[in-house]
Amino acid sequence: MEFNWKFSQTATRMSSSIIREILKLLDDKDVISLAGGIPDPELLPLEEITEATRRVLKEDGVQSLQYSTTEGYLPLREFLAERLNKQGIIADASNIIITSGSQQGLDLLGKLFINPGDVVITEHPTYLGIIQSFTTYGATFCSLPIDDQGLQVGLLEEALRKNNPALIYTLPNFQNPAGVTLPLGRRRKLAELAIQHRVPILEDDPYGELRYYGEPLPAIKSLSCAENTILLGTISKTIAPGHRLGWVVAHEKVIKKLVLAKQAVDLHSNTFSQRVIYEYCRQGHLDQHLKLLRRKYGEKRDAMLMAVKKYFPPEIEWTKPEGGLFLWVTLPEGISSSKLLKESIKRGVAFVPGSAFFTDGSGENTLRLSFSNASPEELELGIKRLAEVFKYQLVAAFD
Amino acid sequence: MEFNWKFSQTATRMSSSIIREILKLLDDKDVISLAGGIPDPELLPLEEITEATRRVLKEDGVQSLQYSTTEGYLPLREFLAERLNKQGIIADASNIIITSGSQQGLDLLGKLFINPGDVVITEHPTYLGIIQSFTTYGATFCSLPIDDQGLQVGLLEEALRKNNPALIYTLPNFQNPAGVTLPLGRRRKLAELAIQHRVPILEDDPYGELRYYGEPLPAIKSLSCAENTILLGTISKTIAPGHRLGWVVAHEKVIKKLVLAKQAVDLHSNTFSQRVIYEYCRQGHLDQHLKLLRRKYGEKRDAMLMAVKKYFPPEIEWTKPEGGLFLWVTLPEGISSSKLLKESIKRGVAFVPGSAFFTDGSGENTLRLSFSNASPEELELGIKRLAEVFKYQLVAAFD
Repeated sequence: MEFNWKFSQTATRMSSSIIREILKLLDDKDVISLAGGIPDPELLPLEEITEATRRVLKEDGVQSLQYSTTEGYLPLREFLAERLNKQGIIADASNIIITSGSQQGLDLLGKLFINPGDVVITEHPTYLGIIQSFTTYGATFCSLPIDDQGLQVGLLEEALRKNNPALIYTLPNFQNPAGVTLPLGRRRKLAELAIQHRVPILEDDPYGELRYYGEPLPAIKSLSCAENTILLGTISKTIAPGHRLGWVVAHEKVIKKLVLAKQAVDLHSNTFSQRVIYEYCRQGHLDQHLKLLRRKYGEKRDAMLMAVKKYFPPEIEWTKPEGGLFLWVTLPEGISSSKLLKESIKRGVAFVPGSAFFTDGSGENTLRLSFSNASPEELELGIKRLAEVFKYQLVAAFD
Repeated sequence: MEFNWKFSQTATRMSSSIIREILKLLDDKDVISLAGGIPDPELLPLEEITEATRRVLKEDGVQSLQYSTTEGYLPLREFLAERLNKQGIIADASNIIITSGSQQGLDLLGKLFINPGDVVITEHPTYLGIIQSFTTYGATFCSLPIDDQGLQVGLLEEALRKNNPALIYTLPNFQNPAGVTLPLGRRRKLAELAIQHRVPILEDDPYGELRYYGEPLPAIKSLSCAENTILLGTISKTIAPGHRLGWVVAHEKVIKKLVLAKQAVDLHSNTFSQRVIYEYCRQGHLDQHLKLLRRKYGEKRDAMLMAVKKYFPPEIEWTKPEGGLFLWVTLPEGISSSKLLKESIKRGVAFVPGSAFFTDGSGENTLRLSFSNASPEELELGIKRLAEVFKYQLVAAFD
């Protein structure tokens, strides 16, 4: 007789990420993946990381292999604080904890702030990792629609009054999945409303450094009316996701709680990676590398937009991101992108169906395209293949 | 007006690890630390890790910096499976997930199995990381006393009947904190009772490879009556804690749930570290290094036991571990080890007060000594200093 495993209520709320499932299917080299938001392998700074690694092993080898503090490597936190200061964010090392990727920061913040049944306000659509994580804590979502300028902040006041939410989660720069950016006026209004209603804001900013057009906008965290804002960052899109390092910038009270939470879940982040990434930054490589990334990813973004304009039928709409890694595509109502995925993979192109990014499972007629991990030529070919699938479907649907 | 942070119920259950707090105080080089169970820096395999790192960066550099699967690096899981097979444990890669240290494995298992209010059966005393983690999930503990042969399994049946526990947590080899080892008969009885009462066993084995005397005992997981056993391992004591790698070995149903849980908390473990540690193992360094560790830590264990016998007054009792990193010391009733810690640090020696390891805060008259991170000479001097503190206290208490 097989053993009968009895899982917790939390466990029954867990579900798999469709992206990770799709990525597993993409071993086939003939399929052009526009699915995952993963860095272009050719743009990973292997040479400089190798040099930084060599130095760490030579100069601090033993310490890099040893246990370290839950807060994170102090020189790395000081480096980040200084960088944040230059962006107008008042913070020192005591306001920063290093996490195992920003996903861990988000998850620990969910643990700190969400009781089962609590409402979290999100964008509609939003990052699916937050849906996965916060669902395990029993959150329910109040998802507010976005437009081409991000969160429709005009709808926020009523949502705050009605829901008494535990948190507001927002991705103001080049949003995942929609690629849209929140303008300054909306940032101010969001911060003011959140303070008035005493709700913390989680400002998730994995892509802020990857701007290809237009001027950088101040972080919500840098606005004087935003002391309740918690900012999350990561090296996953700018240096290397394999090292799993992110950070949370917050009031010291929150950082202290995060330290307790992190002690219980994994003691501390990887000592070796923290020292290697610090060494990489200390050598001054980061800004140089960001320049390269902006140029290369900007070219890819242009190539995808050009191809989309050239090949997609007129019934289809898409966003025009100023940065980040994603385009968001809306098909006519009644067409299901998840049903088209199989046919698309057969034709040699993959994407992420949009419904994965909606807390209520809607958005069947949407999809996310990433331009990070394919060459401009592959992007054109991939979009061309996708356009064929769409055209065939449109004819079938409306014939 | 300062922002009023409202934390979740889970957050209010969090507390700090006294060990991490003590370790922070130990910057003073004149204090001999018998506190943390941290590896001797001189016994970290820096040269071989450096070589493995160089190879990974040269041969798989780009992949080592990229995202990877939640389950963990397949060759590492296959290596571990093969090693487990040799120890009589039936497992393949599908039964293994790589975690960010074994603390993460424990924490994810707590999340999977514990509903608030559930009972977890533990040893009394037990590993404080499990108390920290499982408390955040709202566990209550039924702690069963140990003797010099570990968990008193004779008390288990009644505890199982009365409490209907969600889990049994045990450290059968060189227990943390007590250093004691569960004999085969008790392992069998424990496994049989757990199956009868349909309760999963978490078998935590960070120290199993560090045996200095006597014959290795089979893991509970290897017993035919133990299909409900979940085994946890780590490289933190055998290779390097800074790389934060551990693993969980379990039924595929449990592994699948762990993968979902891990996706939501940190996507996957450090790609780079997994490849470096696999390369280190593939080169055949592990068994050679374990031989060295057994010899060196065995010498330290002997030195500490000899010093304890030589200096401690007769009113004091201690365990004689066959492996691992710890001795457990019991002072006469009425003496508080936590009150003696400050005086001890003043005299140049640190330890961990035993009450940290008791789920009910008892054990004031106990303490844990680690012999891992000091030379035999320092161990003798540290024990001598500690004996003076104890003698002074004994005179004061009973005079």
